Amino acid sequence: MKFYRDVLELRTQKNFQYINITDKIEDVVIKSGIKDGMVFVNATHNTATVIIQEADSTIHGDTKEIIEELIPFDRKWRHSYEGNVNATSHIKNQLLGNSNLSIPVKDGRLVLGTWQQIHFLELLEPRRREVIVTVIGE
Amino acid sequence: MKFYRDVLELRTQKNFQYINITDKIEDVVIKSGIKDGMVFVNATHNTATVIIQEADSTIHGDTKEIIEELIPFDRKWRHSYEGNVNATSHIKNQLLGNSNLSIPVKDGRLVLGTWQQIHFLELLEPRRREVIVTVIGE
Amino acid sequence: MKFYRDVLELRTQKNFQYINITDKIEDVVIKSGIKDGMVFVNATHNTATVIIQEADSTIHGDTKEIIEELIPFDRKWRHSYEGNVNATSHIKNQLLGNSNLSIPVKDGRLVLGTWQQIHFLELLEPRRREVIVTVIGE
Repeated sequence: MKFYRDVLELRTQKNFQYINITDKIEDVVIKSGIKDGMVFVNATHNTATVIIQEADSTIHGDTKEIIEELIPFDRKWRHSYEGNVNATSHIKNQLLGNSNLSIPVKDGRLVLGTWQQIHFLELLEPRRREVIVTVIGE
Repeated sequence: MKFYRDVLELRTQKNFQYINITDKIEDVVIKSGIKDGMVFVNATHNTATVIIQEADSTIHGDTKEIIEELIPFDRKWRHSYEGNVNATSHIKNQLLGNSNLSIPVKDGRLVLGTWQQIHFLELLEPRRREVIVTVIGE
Repeated sequence: MKFYRDVLELRTQKNFQYINITDKIEDVVIKSGIKDGMVFVNATHNTATVIIQEADSTIHGDTKEIIEELIPFDRKWRHSYEGNVNATSHIKNQLLGNSNLSIPVKDGRLVLGTWQQIHFLELLEPRRREVIVTVIGE
């Protein structure tokens, strides 16, 4: 059994932006030389997350719209001293993936369904962001 | 440290169906011969998920009712070209487990609380579905 | 590759209480002697969970308020025979972390963002609770 780690650096452009990081995760798996095991994907943030979902802008738009209705921006939040975008991003993080994912690796590739892609999801404003990728296997 | 993998094939019967797959997951753990470690459970779908919860139809019914109120079927969804059941299933997946779970293994058995069971949760229509089960340990 | 496990015993004091368990998780990592790998955190409960979030009472208060609005106590729940706090706690668990987390370990320490802390989140009433901590790595 082997262990391999890499860190992805991202720059996001806007609030509620889905960034497809599947290829970058798979590149780490290939570099690891690990053929069979698991890859763990961790965002080191409370105001952004990682999530599995289709790479489809209509799904992303629907998700943004309903989540913003359920966790409304315009409300008296206790955590409003950093702004209401910040206050709501913390709640959205806890509902949407909570910054940690585990995904199977087989024959040196990610095991995902036909429509599954791994996304970084920005819940705040444009930021420099970081994702830790850990591969464990043989 | 050892690695073992198996794939479960399921056939679901209806929307928002919880299927208890605890015994099937434990069978894979037993077949693996791994005594202490972790088991990783991954649904290869964006319109269904895996989730830990009690095997209790009243809890499942309550969850279905409130989630369908929060993510209503009858609404103008961007992703509606595949039908509104499809559009909403993608959002529910992101809120309910997001297709990935990790569960401890001890003495060759799953470590679950008294009332915890592992479920496959169909969020779309009757389908042939797949769950990847990965055991890592010693 | 090595494996190490420990069990944390907690006593919670109230409903929707966030208890910061980061130091206790890191103590297990240090005791394990494992330098690089992953730590898995599992609550053996359906009515409480584990979740990554900032140790900030305004965020915790905001989360409690909005989640209690979305999953209201005062409603005719099917699972009400154990009380409505119980009925709603099962749904909250499925939305908030679902009792399982995976977090990277590097140089014998947890890899967390500046503001990330690991919390146990009580969703029911004061209880004796248990968290399984599993470290895998080298």
